[in-house]
Amino acid sequence: MRAVDLIRKKRDSGEHSREEIDFLISGYTRGEIPDYQMAAWLMASWLRGLNRAEIASLTEVMLHSGEILNLSSIPGKKVDKHSTGGVGDKTSLILAPIVAAGGLTVPMISGRGLGHTGGTLDKLESIPGFNVNLSLQEFLSVLRKCGMGLIGQTAEIAPADKKIYALRDATSTVENIGLICASIMSKKLAEGIDALVLDVKTGSGAFMKREEDSVRLAEVMVETGQRMGKKVVALITDMDQPLGRMAGHSVEVLECIEILAGRGPADLRELSLELSAWMFFLGERTKSVDEGRALAESLIASGHAMERFKHCIRLQGGDDRIVEKSQLLPRARSQENVPSPDSGFVTTMNCENLGIALAMLGGGREKKEDSIDHAVGLEFHKRIGDRVEKGEPLATIHYNNGAKLAEAQSMIAGSYKIDEIAPTEKRRLIRRILGG
Amino acid sequence: MRAVDLIRKKRDSGEHSREEIDFLISGYTRGEIPDYQMAAWLMASWLRGLNRAEIASLTEVMLHSGEILNLSSIPGKKVDKHSTGGVGDKTSLILAPIVAAGGLTVPMISGRGLGHTGGTLDKLESIPGFNVNLSLQEFLSVLRKCGMGLIGQTAEIAPADKKIYALRDATSTVENIGLICASIMSKKLAEGIDALVLDVKTGSGAFMKREEDSVRLAEVMVETGQRMGKKVVALITDMDQPLGRMAGHSVEVLECIEILAGRGPADLRELSLELSAWMFFLGERTKSVDEGRALAESLIASGHAMERFKHCIRLQGGDDRIVEKSQLLPRARSQENVPSPDSGFVTTMNCENLGIALAMLGGGREKKEDSIDHAVGLEFHKRIGDRVEKGEPLATIHYNNGAKLAEAQSMIAGSYKIDEIAPTEKRRLIRRILGG
Repeated sequence: MRAVDLIRKKRDSGEHSREEIDFLISGYTRGEIPDYQMAAWLMASWLRGLNRAEIASLTEVMLHSGEILNLSSIPGKKVDKHSTGGVGDKTSLILAPIVAAGGLTVPMISGRGLGHTGGTLDKLESIPGFNVNLSLQEFLSVLRKCGMGLIGQTAEIAPADKKIYALRDATSTVENIGLICASIMSKKLAEGIDALVLDVKTGSGAFMKREEDSVRLAEVMVETGQRMGKKVVALITDMDQPLGRMAGHSVEVLECIEILAGRGPADLRELSLELSAWMFFLGERTKSVDEGRALAESLIASGHAMERFKHCIRLQGGDDRIVEKSQLLPRARSQENVPSPDSGFVTTMNCENLGIALAMLGGGREKKEDSIDHAVGLEFHKRIGDRVEKGEPLATIHYNNGAKLAEAQSMIAGSYKIDEIAPTEKRRLIRRILGG
Repeated sequence: MRAVDLIRKKRDSGEHSREEIDFLISGYTRGEIPDYQMAAWLMASWLRGLNRAEIASLTEVMLHSGEILNLSSIPGKKVDKHSTGGVGDKTSLILAPIVAAGGLTVPMISGRGLGHTGGTLDKLESIPGFNVNLSLQEFLSVLRKCGMGLIGQTAEIAPADKKIYALRDATSTVENIGLICASIMSKKLAEGIDALVLDVKTGSGAFMKREEDSVRLAEVMVETGQRMGKKVVALITDMDQPLGRMAGHSVEVLECIEILAGRGPADLRELSLELSAWMFFLGERTKSVDEGRALAESLIASGHAMERFKHCIRLQGGDDRIVEKSQLLPRARSQENVPSPDSGFVTTMNCENLGIALAMLGGGREKKEDSIDHAVGLEFHKRIGDRVEKGEPLATIHYNNGAKLAEAQSMIAGSYKIDEIAPTEKRRLIRRILGG
């Protein structure tokens, strides 16, 4: 077998066998196939597509390129959630404590933000002392003690994905359903979980802007997970506007604490409860999703979920007093409003541009190596359908470095479309549920 | 400008500006853009295509990546021919001496064989002592003395093409009209010529199997050359079967000597005269193509073309006694016939497989680094339309190493389709003429 022939095959819309995909991916991971051949194959795959069998093979080969966590020493079911990412998407920090407090184990291996999206690891690192770089041994110990743990991808987990993802990032071959599915599922299945709830975002702030693309991605991921014997469900959820009121790092942690305290914005609470409910149901903790939802609500009300969050923060080296003393979290020195240029109703938002404005202010990264200002944040005052008067603030910018403030302000203002007539279409946070 | 954005643009069917192509190609040639990004861009361009303006930009940028020969010190017009390659395609060695003997200058920078096709440089190197690696200074001196010269691509000529071609070869991005055009035309225009005759092969032994693809490539090359102020004509010629009776290296040199001596197979003579005629016409040596043809015929009949060939061989360090003493050329130790499995008429040939069989026997290379056995050759006894009896030889293999003889024999036998009914379609060696 030769890489050049397999590149040609995919270029000419051929279908790869499991052996061919193994040859390519394993050869690349071992350094026997050079970057440039993998780059050509990735672009051919991006443009020609991968079918279900190829995606399953790719996922399996990438999964087996590294270690699969053995959680058999921990009793009970292990469940996780994965989101395809968006602006203000912070549910991991809420539902991990809820589900762990409910008696399941949540071994969450998360990512960092890139481009317009935030990343769970970056948000956690805004908590003083919080260490996301645990060894697998330390991670197991945290999981055993509190039922949840939040770390980054280690060198042992799906090394093929790590190498390929960096190459995709540099060669504009990220946004492809087969490649995304294999990347996500190989990492998630390496967690040694029994069930997985997928939150597939759709809309202007998602990687997949069109609902049909999000549905296709969801279908492929559900099928891939099920082929490998896992319980998988996918919720297609709205990302036409930010989730919750806050986007950033410490500001998002604060909003999560609000939810765990039984307060906070309705949309974020709703989605967190729904995702927790599905995790309880798939993890066989409850007999129905509705029962799972009731359990989640009771764990918030009783304070057990919050306790679990604090316990995890302590176990991972963080300062759990942030829950009571928000001033212990990094806080931006300055605020600036973004006034509405017109009176009327917010009809649409370019949510991706809101994320880009945040990154521009230091609250995100363009390149992997960039550092992040954890205190920077955007606070959104208006949602789609809301009435706004000219001059009234659409959003507030929390910032430290004002160098790009004007640019960010105008980008944010330009992200809101304001019309005289209110939008009539009923917005639904959870659009569809697949699998389950 | 960032390479990753330009890759995305082409991936999404965007059109590059001249500046963007310059950024990519110059950056890559200087080593600032890595192989993997160029590989992804090449595959995106292969699959999405390049339009006429992009191809013109690419050609110009690649041309100006290196030196353009200054032949102004040599009086008269400079003309060249380029063939897209095939099996038994040996006209360069015939028409360079004819055209030089007719008073024009032919500065031929040629290539090596790869895959199923032969290369002019390899054929020349079967002549004892012949040196194709002249410096540009030495090349100029040879051209001044005998009006022709045959060398390989030097480091000074279109370095961008050299680097990109190696990458295309390793990433299955060779067969694309825009990339082929830019590669060929940047090298040819670097020769500092006034006119160029293109021999664009079509059929089972060509890179372009379908006539419409060959015509498209020809059109693009003619237009690109004309945009840059050159006289260019393209002949679309048949490669559904080998050109002439011989394929290999020393055996092809011998066949060229036959033609220059006024003998040899009709098809090879016909094509050589036609190409020479166009070179004379475009080089303004004759007032018409017909007059050019008459001139070519007279230069063969008078022996002047042969004398010119011998002179060039001597100037480039070769032994010109091979013209009279064919035993001075490498000769294979063994012969083996390929008998016809059936009686009937030859209706089609898989001409590419004939070239692959030749390579398999040592007469070609799979990879650039492979060495070549110059003595190996195939002699074809039957052409399309010929009657053949069962057991009668279709071809004779001239070989030194019999390791893959049986495999080559069966590949050759399998390349001929033999039917009871003779093909009725009239075959035309020269299918179309474009430009001029």
